[in-house]
Amino acid sequence: MKFLMKASFELSGEIKDPAALKKHIDDARETLKKGVPKGEQGGEITSVEIGVDRVALTLESGRHVRPHDAVLRIKKRLSQALGREQGIGVRRVTVESYETWYPLDQVPAGKITLPFVKEIEIVDKTAHIVFDELDETALENRYPDRILKRLEEKIKEERVSGKAEFSKRHSESEPRLDRYKLRKDPTSELARRNWVKHMGRGVWTILPAYAALWRAIEDVVMERVARPLGFVEVMLPKIVPLDVQKKKGQLFGIPNEMWWVCPPATRDPAEWERFKDTVKITGQTNPEGLMQNLAPPEFSLAYAQCEPFYDIWEKRTVDRDKLPLRFMDSYGPTWRYESGGLKGLERLSEFKRMEFVWIGSPEDAISIRDEVRDKSIEIMEEVFDVEWRVDATTAVYLEHAGEAVEGEDRDYARTYDLTVALPFETASRPERELEIASFHVHEDHYAKNFYWKEKKGRALWSGCAGISPTRWAYVFLLRHGFDYTDWPSEIKKLIGEKLPNLPDGLFM
Amino acid sequence: MKFLMKASFELSGEIKDPAALKKHIDDARETLKKGVPKGEQGGEITSVEIGVDRVALTLESGRHVRPHDAVLRIKKRLSQALGREQGIGVRRVTVESYETWYPLDQVPAGKITLPFVKEIEIVDKTAHIVFDELDETALENRYPDRILKRLEEKIKEERVSGKAEFSKRHSESEPRLDRYKLRKDPTSELARRNWVKHMGRGVWTILPAYAALWRAIEDVVMERVARPLGFVEVMLPKIVPLDVQKKKGQLFGIPNEMWWVCPPATRDPAEWERFKDTVKITGQTNPEGLMQNLAPPEFSLAYAQCEPFYDIWEKRTVDRDKLPLRFMDSYGPTWRYESGGLKGLERLSEFKRMEFVWIGSPEDAISIRDEVRDKSIEIMEEVFDVEWRVDATTAVYLEHAGEAVEGEDRDYARTYDLTVALPFETASRPERELEIASFHVHEDHYAKNFYWKEKKGRALWSGCAGISPTRWAYVFLLRHGFDYTDWPSEIKKLIGEKLPNLPDGLFM
Repeated sequence: MKFLMKASFELSGEIKDPAALKKHIDDARETLKKGVPKGEQGGEITSVEIGVDRVALTLESGRHVRPHDAVLRIKKRLSQALGREQGIGVRRVTVESYETWYPLDQVPAGKITLPFVKEIEIVDKTAHIVFDELDETALENRYPDRILKRLEEKIKEERVSGKAEFSKRHSESEPRLDRYKLRKDPTSELARRNWVKHMGRGVWTILPAYAALWRAIEDVVMERVARPLGFVEVMLPKIVPLDVQKKKGQLFGIPNEMWWVCPPATRDPAEWERFKDTVKITGQTNPEGLMQNLAPPEFSLAYAQCEPFYDIWEKRTVDRDKLPLRFMDSYGPTWRYESGGLKGLERLSEFKRMEFVWIGSPEDAISIRDEVRDKSIEIMEEVFDVEWRVDATTAVYLEHAGEAVEGEDRDYARTYDLTVALPFETASRPERELEIASFHVHEDHYAKNFYWKEKKGRALWSGCAGISPTRWAYVFLLRHGFDYTDWPSEIKKLIGEKLPNLPDGLFM
Repeated sequence: MKFLMKASFELSGEIKDPAALKKHIDDARETLKKGVPKGEQGGEITSVEIGVDRVALTLESGRHVRPHDAVLRIKKRLSQALGREQGIGVRRVTVESYETWYPLDQVPAGKITLPFVKEIEIVDKTAHIVFDELDETALENRYPDRILKRLEEKIKEERVSGKAEFSKRHSESEPRLDRYKLRKDPTSELARRNWVKHMGRGVWTILPAYAALWRAIEDVVMERVARPLGFVEVMLPKIVPLDVQKKKGQLFGIPNEMWWVCPPATRDPAEWERFKDTVKITGQTNPEGLMQNLAPPEFSLAYAQCEPFYDIWEKRTVDRDKLPLRFMDSYGPTWRYESGGLKGLERLSEFKRMEFVWIGSPEDAISIRDEVRDKSIEIMEEVFDVEWRVDATTAVYLEHAGEAVEGEDRDYARTYDLTVALPFETASRPERELEIASFHVHEDHYAKNFYWKEKKGRALWSGCAGISPTRWAYVFLLRHGFDYTDWPSEIKKLIGEKLPNLPDGLFM
C-alpha cells in the first residue's frame, strides 16, 4: 500500500525567513509518526520546495498517516509557527496530484467509477487510483479513505447483487382462492362505479363508497391492533428533509425510487413573470420552465412513513426503563416512484398506510413486532377470510439503505411480510399475490444512524410495521365483491346500513 | 390596429408550375375575407415571391384575419392544391418577422416584458410589438392574440395591485382575550414538553399529547359540522398533477407559493451511481447533485386541498337534480411555501386541514357554505370560547388563480374568513390574529375551468371550506392552556381521562 501526494501551501505573504520555515517542516516530520503502531511506518515528507510565498511538498505513506492527514497536520504546525514568527498565514492548501497503489482482497468484475477519482487501474490485485478535485473540505473529511471504502463496497456489491432473496414460511392460511368473489383486477370496475377516479400517474381520488371501506378497515386495525397493543397516535410529517433521509439511508440507497420536493427558487413574483406569462400564452403546463424556477429539493415525499420517528430521538439520551413506547401514525399517504405503467389500484404512486413504530429493549422490540404481526393475521382470519401467508424475509430497510443484508441465521427474523394470494396476475408485476403488510425489527440500526443514546449505555432497538388500508381494501374487495350485503358484519357495522355512493343517474 | 408578417413556406420539392401556384395564392386572398364583419377589412397578401422550392409572402391586416391566422389558411389551401397538382407539400411555415401596432386603452406605468416578444415600444397609446420565436404550434394556438390579451391584463394588474382588500364584518364574539391562559407563542414550550418535535423548515412531528388534541378537534368538527350537514368522506390525493393546477389556476397564479414534486429522471441505478457515491464519500446530502438526477415536476404538493374535487367532474355531464353533493376530506396534510422564517406552529410548511367541498345549484352552493360557517362559529362559541370574528373578504381562490377580483357588491359574499384574536404578535407576520378557517362559494368558476356540463345546461356551482385542526389546536391551547384539567369537557370526553404524553424522566 502506497500513497503519494504533491501538495502546495499558498501563504498570505512573502516568506521572511526560509531557513526557519524549513526547520518547522523538518520538525513536522515527527508529527507524521504520531499514532502509528510500533514497528509500522508513518507519513514521510520526501521533498520540500520553498518559493517566495508558497511551499511545495511531496508526501508519501503506507497505511498510516496518509498524505491527506499528513498535509493537514503540517498545515496546522506551519500556520501556528509562521503566524507567530513571520506574521503570515497559510491561505490555501492545494493538492497538485494524489495517487495510491492500494491492495484489494477482491478484484472487480466490471469497470468501477468513483467521484473524486480521475483514473482507476487494477493490476495484480492492486488498484492504482489517481484522485481528483480534492479540496481542503475533502481532506478534512477524509474523502480518500471513504473513496477506498466505497471502492471495496462496490466490489462486494457486484458479488451479492445476484444473491437469492431469503424467505422462510412463518405461517399461512389454507387455500381460499375459490372463495374470492372477483376473479380479475377490479380497477376499471371501481372507476365505472364511481368508487374511484383517476387523476394522475398512480394517483386516484377515492370516492365515498371506497373511502368508506378504507375508513372501516382503518377502524378495524385501530380496534384490533393499535388499541389493544397500547399504540398511541402521533402525526409523522409526510415530507422528510434530505438530512433525515440521509440518516435513514434512503438518500443513498433508493434515491431513484422516491419523489422529491423542491421549493421555488424565490417567492419574488418578478422572477416568476416569464413562467406565468408563458403558461397563460401557450396554455401548456411547461414543466421544464417550472423546473428552471425551482431550487434543489429540500424534502422527499415520505416513502417509508416511519422516517420522522427516528428523528424524534436523534442525539437524545433516554432512560430505557421508561420504554418501550409504541406510536401509530395515520396522518396521510406515502409515495413511491414505481417502475413501469401503473394501471391498477394494487400498486400506486400515492397510497395509504398505518405505520406502527416502537422503541425499547431488544426483547421489547421483537415481542411488539410479533404482537402486531399476530393481530394482523387475526384480522385476515376473522374478518378478511383471504388466502394469506407470512414469510420471514430479507430485511428490506437495510436494502433501502443500500446495505448488504447478511446473517439471516438469527433466532428471530428481522422482517416478516404478510402476503395475500390473488386469483390473477397483477398489471404492475408478474405476480399472483400482493404484499399487504410488513413487520420489522431494526435492532440498533437507527439507534446508530441517528445517534440515540441510552442513560446507562444499554441497547436501544426499534421496530416498525406498515399496514396499508389501500392494499387491504383491494384484497378485501377481491374476496367479498361489490355487493355490500355480502360483506362481513364487522365491516358493515362500522360503515352503517348503506354503503355511501354517488347517486344513481348522476352522470349522463 | 395593424399587423405585418413576413413568412415563408418551405416546400417538399421543386415547384413545377409557378404560374399555377401564383394563381392559388391569388385565389387564397378570398379566404382571408371569410368571417369578416361587413364593411371591415380582412387579411391582405401584399407581396409574393416564388422561389425554387419556397414561397415568401408579406401579410397585413387590421383587427380581422390577422397574419397568424391568414398564413395557416393559405398553407391549408396551398397544401391541398400543390399536393394534388404538383405532387409537393408544404414542409414548414417560418415566420421571418411579425409585428403589430396595437392601440391600448391604458398605457402601462412601468416596463412590460412578455415571452415571444422581442420588443415593445409604446407611443401615443399604441404599442409597437415585435414578436419573436413563433413556430407553427404558436400560430395554430394563436399565441399572438394571447400575448396581446396578456399585455392588456398586465397593464390592468399594475393598476389593481395596490387596491385595498375588501373586508366587511359578518359577525363577531365579545372581547375575550383576557380569558386566554397563554400570553405568548407556545411553540418553544410545546417542544420543551415533548408535545411537538421540530424536523425541518416549517415541518413538525406531532407527539402524543398534541396529537390527541388535534384528533379531538377533528372529532368535534366531524360531530358538529360534517355529520349533521351530511358531508361524506372522500380521500383527495395530496399531490396534484400540473394539469389540474393549471385548470385550478394556481400554476399561473401562485407557482411561487407552492412546493413541487419531481420524479427521478430515471430509475436506472447506473445513472444514480455518481450521486450515491458522492453522498457516501462526502457525507453530505448534495441537493444540487440530486436535482441533476430529477425530471421536471409532475405534481405540486396539495395547496388548496380541494384541487382534486374539481377534477372529479371534469368534462362530465351531470344531472343537477341529483345534487347537491357534500364531500369531506381529512386524508392528509397540505403544504405552503411560506415566506421568511417559519418559527411558530401558527404558520407552517406542512399543516392539517379538513376540507369541505360541495357541488350543486347556486342556491345550494351558498346555503351549504353558510351552514358550514355557522356550525364553525358554534364550535368557537360552545367549545373554544376564543375571541373570534367572521369577515366577508376578497375571494382568495380568484387571487390564487391570478385573477382580478371585482364585483364585491353581490348580495352574498364569495368568501368568509374566520379569524381568532391572539394576545401577541406572531413571529411569522406582524399580526395579533390568526385566520383559522375560510368558507367559499366559487360560483361557476371551476365549472368553467374544468368544463363541467349540466344535462339541461343549468348552472353548476361549487364551494369549499377549510378547517385547520393545526390552527384550531393552536388557538385552543392559547385559550385553555397546558393544564388538561382546565380543558372543556367536550374535548376531554373525546381524549379520555388522561392526556397521553411521553413518560416523565424519559429524556436525560
